[in-house]
Amino acid sequence: MRYRERRKNTRSVLCVGLDPDLDRLPEGYPRTIQGLEEHLKEVILCTHGFAVAYKPNSAFFESWGAAGWEMLKRIVHFIQSESDCLVILDAKRGDLGNTASHYARAAFDELKADAITLSPYMGRESLEPFLLREKVASFVLCLTSNSGALDFQYHGNPPLYEKVASLCNQWHGTSGNLGLVVGATRDPSELRSIRSLAPDLIFLVPGVGSQGGDLDAVMSVAGPDVLINASRSVLFASHHRRDVPARSSEEAGKLVQSMQKHLHDL
Amino acid sequence: MRYRERRKNTRSVLCVGLDPDLDRLPEGYPRTIQGLEEHLKEVILCTHGFAVAYKPNSAFFESWGAAGWEMLKRIVHFIQSESDCLVILDAKRGDLGNTASHYARAAFDELKADAITLSPYMGRESLEPFLLREKVASFVLCLTSNSGALDFQYHGNPPLYEKVASLCNQWHGTSGNLGLVVGATRDPSELRSIRSLAPDLIFLVPGVGSQGGDLDAVMSVAGPDVLINASRSVLFASHHRRDVPARSSEEAGKLVQSMQKHLHDL
Repeated sequence: MRYRERRKNTRSVLCVGLDPDLDRLPEGYPRTIQGLEEHLKEVILCTHGFAVAYKPNSAFFESWGAAGWEMLKRIVHFIQSESDCLVILDAKRGDLGNTASHYARAAFDELKADAITLSPYMGRESLEPFLLREKVASFVLCLTSNSGALDFQYHGNPPLYEKVASLCNQWHGTSGNLGLVVGATRDPSELRSIRSLAPDLIFLVPGVGSQGGDLDAVMSVAGPDVLINASRSVLFASHHRRDVPARSSEEAGKLVQSMQKHLHDL
Repeated sequence: MRYRERRKNTRSVLCVGLDPDLDRLPEGYPRTIQGLEEHLKEVILCTHGFAVAYKPNSAFFESWGAAGWEMLKRIVHFIQSESDCLVILDAKRGDLGNTASHYARAAFDELKADAITLSPYMGRESLEPFLLREKVASFVLCLTSNSGALDFQYHGNPPLYEKVASLCNQWHGTSGNLGLVVGATRDPSELRSIRSLAPDLIFLVPGVGSQGGDLDAVMSVAGPDVLINASRSVLFASHHRRDVPARSSEEAGKLVQSMQKHLHDL
């Protein structure tokens, strides 16, 4: 599996989130979609030695319409041609079986992503077209890092997020290509319960860095089968273009250093 | 509100789903993205007198990449320039607040849709950027028509779908622009409980027609504040291009006729 190979080669579980945003674009770039693309490419070039994966956030590209979609395709291609990193399309899709198969085509055949994030609300049927694809992975929302997680994810007893974890663990058995999205800002005991319900699934963990999640706490509980995502703290580490290579790689390097003490047995 | 005005003028609650699909495209059209667009436009021209809304399904456009995104934008514009029908972008988005605001830009500023479908898994925060938009509406997944609905939507006591209905009803109070997606294939007693929890919300109801839902049963229980969606039964009513205007309008007309006995008091 490419994830494990890449983790071994880099001794890292870093995923860099790509949320191109004019409001945060460092000075020195044109304030255009071209400027956003130049910035992303410069960040990718200076961080790919530290990263296992990149996670472009579909919304930030879609808000530019067809031009954004074209940029997204170029960025996926750029990552894959400049590095061995995986590309996780952060799209949180979830729909009827027949519709879901079209979302799978968009992500894997059109954009050529290696993985996608999905929402579980519509159940197994909505994940099936993704499960059937070999050589790609799908990360299903389980317990998220945002404040809105409290509204529905804790509903019921056991809480909904535990039900998502157990069913995904079952479904993973038949396909072997499912993972879970588990936020870093949640209580370690909750991460522990998810890990015990889904011992073999890779956790994609956003919320470390700008959102305040604790990398050590997450990795102590969840173990090494994780992808720790940092978006803003790496992408917007610098306020000016001239410092991007130094500052973004420095931030990525620091994160990887904190990860390595949890990876020494691999 | 444009929905009520349109419903009054047409004496219909029909929403026509637009799922352009080469595998189902009637004979006589080029087997290309252009052929799909010609077909959609011909169906729109012969059905808009019956319809309150059209619901383009984002996945079927996204699977064509940037070219599909451009077609989607032209279709939204075509509906709005040829008719007074509303356009509901069926996208089932749901993400962190900041990301959600970019999805809202994509749907409302870029594509100029009048409404969108959303997934509730990430809670109120993920709906907020849509709630803050005036003059547009958002339909949140509540109880869906597919078999996968059983996996999570019934979890807990009360079941998750009831919790979604009550919280959306609260959130609707402050903005007035929320609706719910409620499948036509479910038990009438479940529709009744959702209606009692969310008395003022418009229900977008897929599952009538090809999926086997019963229009009379739905409207008897849910009342007139609904949008009954038919996709394949109208869009693919004919196997050949020459019959599209006659067959699609006939199917749409039949559905509207069944609706009108439930709309006589308006």
